[in-house]
Amino acid sequence: MTELEHRTPDPVWNAWGTAEAASPVSGQVRDLLEQGLGVPRRDTPSVPRSAVRLGESRLSEPVRAELNRIVGAEHVRTDAESRLLHAGGKSTPDLLRRRAGDARAAPDAVVLPGSPEQVSAVLARCAELRVAVVPFGGGTSVVGGVEPERGGFDAVLAVDLRRLAALVELDAESGTATLQAGLRAPEAEELLAAHGCTLGHFPQSFEHASIGGFAATRSSGQASAGYGRFDAMVVRVRVATPRGELDLGRAPASAAGPDLRQLFLGSEGALGIITEVTLRVRPVPEEVVPEAWAFPDFAGGSAALRELAQAEALPTVARLSDEAETAVNLAAAHDVGGGQVAGGCLLITRCEGPRIAVRERMRALLEEAGGSSLGAGPAQDWERGRYRGPHLRDALLDVNALVETLETATSWSRLQETRDAVTAALTEALREQGTPPLVLCHLSHAYPTGASLYFTVVCGRGEEPVEQWWRAKRAAGAAITRCGATISHHHAVGLDHREWLTEEIGELGVEVLRAVKSAVDPVGILNPGKLIP
Amino acid sequence: MTELEHRTPDPVWNAWGTAEAASPVSGQVRDLLEQGLGVPRRDTPSVPRSAVRLGESRLSEPVRAELNRIVGAEHVRTDAESRLLHAGGKSTPDLLRRRAGDARAAPDAVVLPGSPEQVSAVLARCAELRVAVVPFGGGTSVVGGVEPERGGFDAVLAVDLRRLAALVELDAESGTATLQAGLRAPEAEELLAAHGCTLGHFPQSFEHASIGGFAATRSSGQASAGYGRFDAMVVRVRVATPRGELDLGRAPASAAGPDLRQLFLGSEGALGIITEVTLRVRPVPEEVVPEAWAFPDFAGGSAALRELAQAEALPTVARLSDEAETAVNLAAAHDVGGGQVAGGCLLITRCEGPRIAVRERMRALLEEAGGSSLGAGPAQDWERGRYRGPHLRDALLDVNALVETLETATSWSRLQETRDAVTAALTEALREQGTPPLVLCHLSHAYPTGASLYFTVVCGRGEEPVEQWWRAKRAAGAAITRCGATISHHHAVGLDHREWLTEEIGELGVEVLRAVKSAVDPVGILNPGKLIP
Repeated sequence: MTELEHRTPDPVWNAWGTAEAASPVSGQVRDLLEQGLGVPRRDTPSVPRSAVRLGESRLSEPVRAELNRIVGAEHVRTDAESRLLHAGGKSTPDLLRRRAGDARAAPDAVVLPGSPEQVSAVLARCAELRVAVVPFGGGTSVVGGVEPERGGFDAVLAVDLRRLAALVELDAESGTATLQAGLRAPEAEELLAAHGCTLGHFPQSFEHASIGGFAATRSSGQASAGYGRFDAMVVRVRVATPRGELDLGRAPASAAGPDLRQLFLGSEGALGIITEVTLRVRPVPEEVVPEAWAFPDFAGGSAALRELAQAEALPTVARLSDEAETAVNLAAAHDVGGGQVAGGCLLITRCEGPRIAVRERMRALLEEAGGSSLGAGPAQDWERGRYRGPHLRDALLDVNALVETLETATSWSRLQETRDAVTAALTEALREQGTPPLVLCHLSHAYPTGASLYFTVVCGRGEEPVEQWWRAKRAAGAAITRCGATISHHHAVGLDHREWLTEEIGELGVEVLRAVKSAVDPVGILNPGKLIP
Repeated sequence: MTELEHRTPDPVWNAWGTAEAASPVSGQVRDLLEQGLGVPRRDTPSVPRSAVRLGESRLSEPVRAELNRIVGAEHVRTDAESRLLHAGGKSTPDLLRRRAGDARAAPDAVVLPGSPEQVSAVLARCAELRVAVVPFGGGTSVVGGVEPERGGFDAVLAVDLRRLAALVELDAESGTATLQAGLRAPEAEELLAAHGCTLGHFPQSFEHASIGGFAATRSSGQASAGYGRFDAMVVRVRVATPRGELDLGRAPASAAGPDLRQLFLGSEGALGIITEVTLRVRPVPEEVVPEAWAFPDFAGGSAALRELAQAEALPTVARLSDEAETAVNLAAAHDVGGGQVAGGCLLITRCEGPRIAVRERMRALLEEAGGSSLGAGPAQDWERGRYRGPHLRDALLDVNALVETLETATSWSRLQETRDAVTAALTEALREQGTPPLVLCHLSHAYPTGASLYFTVVCGRGEEPVEQWWRAKRAAGAAITRCGATISHHHAVGLDHREWLTEEIGELGVEVLRAVKSAVDPVGILNPGKLIP
């Protein structure tokens, strides 16, 4: 086992990132908000830490004693800081609540187990003691996945997995690494880089998210076209449940019945706590070729990506912004190829590793499909800012704006219809509330049979911004469902998408999930209220 | 919906194939058996049809009346021919039993529903009436998957899906086709070819197996390196259960919780009957480039395939025979490149469609890894005989030989160890019984993290050949398990691998499967005794 000498710093309680990563929006952006969207120029800062309302911990002494026995007293925390840092995730409603001083949802304690065995022991004991457990990795859920709901129990613990932070094994011949679930993504990359390897998993949450969280939510990274979704990298998964351990996956592929790994990937802490994952790794690429392209419109750009996906000629990164997102990106960074894409759409590509070999075919297909190369510049710009989005949201929330994102995926044949329907639903629902939005969209995960759509919404903040957003979110969810698309391509279900899951998998599908939960968590202590309607 | 004008002919009751496909072994092969393996020259033909023992149907009149009501009386069959043709699968023990005249396992009736709705209605009614149901597609299971076990119920039905034989929808833009489960593979290919498409799924069972069977058993075809395993092609699956329908999969990828499709892929009829599948399809390739290669040994050849898989340079077909299989293939067809691979290993490759583009990289990597091209000839020979194996088994069973196959998959780092252990276990177990075998092995499915191993065993037939084989099979299963490999890469679990599943997924994994079964099939009528230990 290899361990790290230092750790990724924690984000602050009321923002996506660390204090160091914060930077206020420019006057120019404030002008744009005011002139473009009619957002009144007003500061809307977070309350100070001292104004945060945090209830008393309800952890009883007998429960604390049991936890102390299992993980050691120093790893059972009930101090206000620890509880506040585990009070919820990082959706805009989450941040708005905490910025307004409301952290009443904070867990009664934070427990930090030091081994998979300790995780199992904590779960078994919590089931006996009837204490709810919320697994906590990087805490970057934007769907309410780490909300510390008690679910009818007296107390709720956040089980923070940060001490499970080892590279357990690297099998260089098979190209696999076994990583503990609490490793943050940058830490995992650092450990693998020492062996010349990478996961190639770079979602926007990269700076803070954890390996276990990626697995539990079926995360997908910006380089998914080349490296695949996180779930597709998983060879083996080790899961602790109140009824014991599961260790699933013993071959690159198997016909030994249903693939039970696929029940625990995406299980969001409701069916167990993932403690260890064996993943496919690749050599760190020696060569990287970024290139940006202009397309006349989104339909043309997405048709080009469909061609690439179906011809097995996708680059490592493929990300197509719609007209609105392209225009905003250009306004934000006018050195980004400027007028060349004015009125059109920007496609970012990046070839690395084995995908260098498809580059010429990719270029030919993109040109044939109506694309014009803009060279490396805009692709390099994108790369520099690839994790900035949620930090920018922090800054925008300070200046009277409401910003949030949502995403879906569907077949190629329903992609345009779905984009139009979701854009219209968001626009209409916010306009009705007197806050006409800007709705941006991009396609960042292309598959042979379809693609993802990612929406960013910016508008003025209403009187009740949480409810304001929820009206828009409900309209978007209804549009997604109506179009037959999935309620989430890579954000997961959590609390926020629960109401749509029945439509997606059917009543009987929900009963199947409940049956699985009963088998592994008969008392129902695992992440109450998440995932299962 | 598009339907076919003609249908694939049924195999005969006591052989893999049709009467037309049968051909006796040559005198030369009989010489080889006698001289090489000490198999006494003796004819061991099947009993004639007239000598087959088939019990009376136990279908009660009230049950028959209910089935008649749902599917129509002409689709409820209790005649001896229909029952005999559904009396079991096509493993060597299955064939040996029927060739000896034992068809007592035959189902009490064969029911042929005409729509997914009728399948659901049959299941719901059978659960009320307490009648067991065995789904039947092509009947090619080699693991006891279609054995008509009553499981404690009074009667057992084979539900033959042949009337579900339509191409329901072709979405050319998304590159998907929705196919009904009863379509045999050649029929599905014919329907798709009319649209210029193919599934690219060509397992050795291709001539008879069905779309539903491929999905229910996680089949893998000979072109899996290029087209992927069958389960990887599935976008959507529609399943009938006694408790209603499931319709799962609405996007190319999703983070909406666990992937429930993966519970029903590989469910082997024990969790429901798959009635319809939406699959990725590709254009029929315009160009096909076959090429054979010689490698000094199996370890070198498999290292080369590992390189290809990890460098994303696999051809469409990649099949490496070990030294023994190479020698036998050469003896069987001396026009196959002759002395060039004597003592070494033969690798068959075939590039088609998008894989034409990787051909030069593939060639360079194979040469670098010590391979020498043998040109197209041996690869074309392989292709001509690609479905012959099981027909040859029929002929060998007629001349006092015992022939069977088994398979597994494991990581690259444990591949050689697993091959050696399984080969030794089979050899030892059969030698002990006085029938020293020839054990052949090939690697036909390569993945970035590991590969499959497929074993063919030939020896003289003992007094009790079913038990003789089972001793060898148990030794091989123990070796596979000891090596940490999977008990099946593409044959599924059925009856025959059930005893090893607990080792593979753990007691709690088995409990999860039981919980799912209880949710969808509380009475337990679905394919009793299969899959779940």
